[in-house]
Amino acid sequence: MENVKVIIYGLGAMGKGMAEMLLKKKGAEIVGVVGRGKMLGTSMYDHLSVEKEDRKDVIIGTYEDVITEKAADVVLLCTDSFTKNAFEKIKYCLEKKINVVSSAEEMAYPKAQEPELTKEMHKIAKENGVTVLGTGINPGLMMDLLVVALTGACEEVDHIVARRVNSLSPFGPAVMEEQGIGITVDAFNKGVKENTLAGHVGFVESVNMITDAIGWKLSDQVKQSMQPIVSNVYRKSPYAEVQAGDVAGCAMKGFGYVDGELKIEMDHPQQIEPELEGVHTGDYIIIKGTPDINMAINPEVPGGIGTIAMCVNMIPHVINARAGLKTMLDLPVPRAIMGDMRDLIER
Amino acid sequence: MENVKVIIYGLGAMGKGMAEMLLKKKGAEIVGVVGRGKMLGTSMYDHLSVEKEDRKDVIIGTYEDVITEKAADVVLLCTDSFTKNAFEKIKYCLEKKINVVSSAEEMAYPKAQEPELTKEMHKIAKENGVTVLGTGINPGLMMDLLVVALTGACEEVDHIVARRVNSLSPFGPAVMEEQGIGITVDAFNKGVKENTLAGHVGFVESVNMITDAIGWKLSDQVKQSMQPIVSNVYRKSPYAEVQAGDVAGCAMKGFGYVDGELKIEMDHPQQIEPELEGVHTGDYIIIKGTPDINMAINPEVPGGIGTIAMCVNMIPHVINARAGLKTMLDLPVPRAIMGDMRDLIER
Repeated sequence: MENVKVIIYGLGAMGKGMAEMLLKKKGAEIVGVVGRGKMLGTSMYDHLSVEKEDRKDVIIGTYEDVITEKAADVVLLCTDSFTKNAFEKIKYCLEKKINVVSSAEEMAYPKAQEPELTKEMHKIAKENGVTVLGTGINPGLMMDLLVVALTGACEEVDHIVARRVNSLSPFGPAVMEEQGIGITVDAFNKGVKENTLAGHVGFVESVNMITDAIGWKLSDQVKQSMQPIVSNVYRKSPYAEVQAGDVAGCAMKGFGYVDGELKIEMDHPQQIEPELEGVHTGDYIIIKGTPDINMAINPEVPGGIGTIAMCVNMIPHVINARAGLKTMLDLPVPRAIMGDMRDLIER
Repeated sequence: MENVKVIIYGLGAMGKGMAEMLLKKKGAEIVGVVGRGKMLGTSMYDHLSVEKEDRKDVIIGTYEDVITEKAADVVLLCTDSFTKNAFEKIKYCLEKKINVVSSAEEMAYPKAQEPELTKEMHKIAKENGVTVLGTGINPGLMMDLLVVALTGACEEVDHIVARRVNSLSPFGPAVMEEQGIGITVDAFNKGVKENTLAGHVGFVESVNMITDAIGWKLSDQVKQSMQPIVSNVYRKSPYAEVQAGDVAGCAMKGFGYVDGELKIEMDHPQQIEPELEGVHTGDYIIIKGTPDINMAINPEVPGGIGTIAMCVNMIPHVINARAGLKTMLDLPVPRAIMGDMRDLIER
């Protein structure tokens, strides 16, 4: 049987991680990489921590070069956070009859904020006999799918808290800027007002995924708040430096209301070097219901590796799925791939 | 749209719990109950803690009376622990073109110990255009499906421990006897030797579910051990009494080997009144890999409610599934049903 053929679209931190993970897997093969700028024409291996050895080289190309009809079984699209920005790229891949896994946060549950684009992607995917899925560690697993799975053991659910306390220390300059790390409190507050700080993207998606899954109907829009995590001490990470009194992180909260009552709380403080002030990272799910369920994962499942793994691990499910736009709610549970990826494909 | 029609087959503790749960759900209706002995001819409501009110009565009947062609959308079969004992009942339901959810522990992954019966059930289900699923809290979720789902965030998995430390205090006389609660250590050891103590049924199923899911191939049969939990203090629960020096519980372990190496450890000490000796109950999953994942749920998700909820909550997934024998690995993640069950059925 032929290898599962994968194209990586976007060779940033996530795309590189996915490429490196795929190179360790049996039965999968990277057949193309879409890049831009100076990367074009260079070898994929110039940008990875894995040696080429006796593998066939992969030269980075433009999307028109690389994404040709049925050129691969799946494209891993790692370019955007927002559905509207990813949309044209997804459409292009689907029309070339290639399945798509997108790491764009909003694509984890696109109908929450982009119902029209969602319908269109679903239609295009079906017309072309392929599938598109958005996933990642969060949204995608820790604050939504895992919550949903745990409610499976509940007769009744009254209230849900999903909390993810994580460290941003391993992340690069783009994340530092999006989250406001190292700036003053005034600058942070100005950023919130002027909507220039992205913070975490995904609460609207996570809350809608949960409510749709368990059959609650939101009575209000998902509310969100964003606060600076002001450091009392000097903190330093590979890509950021924070003076005492400045911003070491961004604490986001999200609130889902059913019949006007607060039913879902999302709590996601992200910062560099949390240990310096005694903050222990972790993922927490607290379900009040029949029965109550109190889950903790310590430390948190790391965001970078987690997103890389989720996107790669969902490849077989996406190839096997019926055509259309799918979410994590529609497909079987994610799982690591320790065997040959070809064994997982239903031909 | 018509209600989702359910038949309960077996009105023991699990069947009763499922009936009571269903009576609280919108869009679902109990259309029949299969019982035996003195229960025959009595009203289902005589055995439940829910009043009949203005609902239509349900008179308990034999399986021939109740299970007629397409008499319901699904049968919840709550009669057995072992596939070979449940098999004829499942076959009967499938041949009447009714989907089946079985709470029999071995049915959570029947091919692990009954590959021939599994093939036969799959064939019969397909021929009749219906689906059969085995599920429950364990096996079904805590020591297998949840493990699998968490590996979805892993690039690599090296070793897995699933630990479930639970209290047996709420359970009835049958469980006390199966687990050897209240007997002497000598009697327990004799029971182990003569194979008269059931202990926990499900390790072989859980281990095979995990290895099949992530692509490990077991090199040896799943090994199991069973030890008495000897109490240092007097313990008493509604259905058992334990003198100091006697058996308060049954500690089972299971071991899965890949290429001769121990890769999966199952650890499941079950006892009454664990708090009396400072034991805190909980569910624990420890994955060594990339990344490591350390999950804890405290206290444990209770076994009775959990199994009841899992079986009822999987009804829509089972009705929607393609025909055949399915496992929790094949279907979308379980989830609570807080809305109208009919909204979840794809017609």
